[in-house]
Amino acid sequence: MQFLEILEKKRNRKPLSKAEIGFFIDGYTKGQIPDYQASALLMAIFLNELSADETAWLTESMLYSGLVVDLGDIPGIKVDKHSTGGVGDKTSLIVAPICAALDVPVPMISGRGLGHTGGTLDKLEAIPGFNVNLNLDQYREIIGKTGLCLIGQTKEIAPADKKLYALRDVTATVENQSLIAASIMSKKMAEGIDGLVLDVKTGRGAFMEQLPEAESLAELMISIGRKMGKQVTALITDMSQPLGSHIGNALEVIESVMILKGDKEVVRSDLAELSWLLAAHMIKLGGKADSLDGALEMVQKSIADGSAFDKFKEIVNEQGGDEKCLLDFSRLPNATRSFRITAAESGFIASLDALEIGRGSVVLGAGRQTLDSVIDPAVGVVLKKKIGDPVNTGETVMEIKYNEDQRLAEALSYFESSFSVVKNAVSSPEVIIKTLGDI
Amino acid sequence: MQFLEILEKKRNRKPLSKAEIGFFIDGYTKGQIPDYQASALLMAIFLNELSADETAWLTESMLYSGLVVDLGDIPGIKVDKHSTGGVGDKTSLIVAPICAALDVPVPMISGRGLGHTGGTLDKLEAIPGFNVNLNLDQYREIIGKTGLCLIGQTKEIAPADKKLYALRDVTATVENQSLIAASIMSKKMAEGIDGLVLDVKTGRGAFMEQLPEAESLAELMISIGRKMGKQVTALITDMSQPLGSHIGNALEVIESVMILKGDKEVVRSDLAELSWLLAAHMIKLGGKADSLDGALEMVQKSIADGSAFDKFKEIVNEQGGDEKCLLDFSRLPNATRSFRITAAESGFIASLDALEIGRGSVVLGAGRQTLDSVIDPAVGVVLKKKIGDPVNTGETVMEIKYNEDQRLAEALSYFESSFSVVKNAVSSPEVIIKTLGDI
Repeated sequence: MQFLEILEKKRNRKPLSKAEIGFFIDGYTKGQIPDYQASALLMAIFLNELSADETAWLTESMLYSGLVVDLGDIPGIKVDKHSTGGVGDKTSLIVAPICAALDVPVPMISGRGLGHTGGTLDKLEAIPGFNVNLNLDQYREIIGKTGLCLIGQTKEIAPADKKLYALRDVTATVENQSLIAASIMSKKMAEGIDGLVLDVKTGRGAFMEQLPEAESLAELMISIGRKMGKQVTALITDMSQPLGSHIGNALEVIESVMILKGDKEVVRSDLAELSWLLAAHMIKLGGKADSLDGALEMVQKSIADGSAFDKFKEIVNEQGGDEKCLLDFSRLPNATRSFRITAAESGFIASLDALEIGRGSVVLGAGRQTLDSVIDPAVGVVLKKKIGDPVNTGETVMEIKYNEDQRLAEALSYFESSFSVVKNAVSSPEVIIKTLGDI
Repeated sequence: MQFLEILEKKRNRKPLSKAEIGFFIDGYTKGQIPDYQASALLMAIFLNELSADETAWLTESMLYSGLVVDLGDIPGIKVDKHSTGGVGDKTSLIVAPICAALDVPVPMISGRGLGHTGGTLDKLEAIPGFNVNLNLDQYREIIGKTGLCLIGQTKEIAPADKKLYALRDVTATVENQSLIAASIMSKKMAEGIDGLVLDVKTGRGAFMEQLPEAESLAELMISIGRKMGKQVTALITDMSQPLGSHIGNALEVIESVMILKGDKEVVRSDLAELSWLLAAHMIKLGGKADSLDGALEMVQKSIADGSAFDKFKEIVNEQGGDEKCLLDFSRLPNATRSFRITAAESGFIASLDALEIGRGSVVLGAGRQTLDSVIDPAVGVVLKKKIGDPVNTGETVMEIKYNEDQRLAEALSYFESSFSVVKNAVSSPEVIIKTLGDI
């Protein structure tokens, strides 16, 4: 087989066979196909697209470019959750311990922050001592022992994806549904899961800004998962405003703990609503409940009886983190300074742009501006108002937690332009837009 | 300026500015833009296309990536001819001495065989001693002295094209009109010419198989040339069957000499017709004739009085070649063996596929199968019949000149399937299809 013929085929809008896609992924992973040929194919795929079949074959090839973890000796139906990325989305820290507490094992291999969106690994590392760099033996062992484990992508997991992702990032071939779906699903299928709940974000702060794009991406990932014999549920959720109230790594650990402890301040939030629903779908896929309502009740019980929070403390401890942080937030990284942004007029919050708030947070140090940037786990923003909330002149809309004046000065324009106030009442957007797949 | 933004723009079907195209060519030539980013842009250009303006800017950037020869101190309007590549096309060897003999200086920088098509440099090198690897000072000096010079692309001429061409060749981005036009025109504009006659081939043996493609390529090259202040004429010519009767490097030198000497065997051929017309257009662009008919008469005179052939001997001698070869063909490389392909039935030749004959010739050794292949200058094929010719059962259609039995065995299927015989009379195709540009 000649790679040039594969390239010509896709360039000419013809479908590639399973063998041709396998030849590409195998050759590229082994370094036999050079970057300059792979990038030409990526651009041809970006512009001429892959069918659902081709996308499934690409996913499979990428999956088998590395190790596929076998958790068959661990009892139970293993279920993970994956989000396409947003601002203030800390649901992984919440749903993983809830499910594990309810005997649904959660093997979770996560990523770092990307662009203006946060990453689970960065959030976990805000907990002093927490080690996400475990090997697959330790991962398997900890899941067997505690029912969950939260690590980063190891070199054995989908190496083709790692290499291709780096190439896509520098060749303007990131935002393609097939390439996104294959990248996500190849990593998820390698974790050793039986079921998967996807949280596909849409809105200004999401990579798929428009609803139809988010829906078709969700459907593509569901079809890939099913072709591989997995149960997949997908929620399409709102990312026009940040999820919850806390943005920034340590701040998001704090809000997660508040949710897991059933703190009255947060139980009626969009974050709580989404977390409960994601966890309930996981419980249902995990075979522990017959109905979604039944699963939701179990979730509430795990919060009320403290078992979910206990499970979080257990996994923090197991992975080397300081569990005392979770009871005493002063032990977490704390920003030294704070700045309040207030409303110039009274009325109702009409918009609260997740993209601008995400970008401002990155400038503060909560995310990476370059590959080498070091994250400041303490900084971020706490939203005092969300869309639809009434606000009075001079009242605080958000509180910025920062460590460097220079960074605050640079970030302020993002935060100040992120919200608008109108005179007439505004309804709060629904966080759950749609549910697709195995419901 | 960020290369990634340029890449995103063309990916999103947006036009690039002159500055952006310049940034790409300059950065790529200097090695600041890596191959894997350049190949992604080439594929985006291939699929989303460049406008005529963008193509002209690309040509200009590629031209000025290297030296532009100034022949201002040599008297006369300098004119070159360029063909888009075919099988049996040895017109360069014929028209260059004719024009030089008629005081139109011909600065000619040519290429090597590509795929199934032959290259002027390979043909010239079939003449023992002929040196095409002269530097630009020698080139300038020889044009001043003899009125023509026939060399290969030096490292100073359009280095961006050299680098991009190599990349296009391995990334399935060769067959794009804008990229082809920019590649050809950037090299031609660097030669020091004032006018250019283009021979754009169409038909089975051409890179532009269909007439509309050939026409639009011709029009694109004419518009680029005019934007750069040059006079350009383009002929669209037939390449459904090979041009002339001899295919293979030394064999094509022989046929060229026959034409230049006005040999009766060949003066009524398609090769002669096209050569006379190309030369006449060059003479006219060169300001030596007011009408095409007048120019054609001058061409005939240069053949009849031997001045064109004398000029060919002069340049062969000047560039180190053995001019005695041109009088005694036994001094040229000769194949040791010969094989005749005969007609199985009587009738008329209905097709004589230039692509198959070109491919068969490459297998014999007349062209390169890989970059490292060494050409055998002696081998090739002599056509005894062309489309429309009557043929009797057992009569020779073509004679294959070869040196290795193994190669003949492999090449035979190409030659045997290259022609067809039908009962009813077939008309011979017109070699000149259309003339465009400055006529």
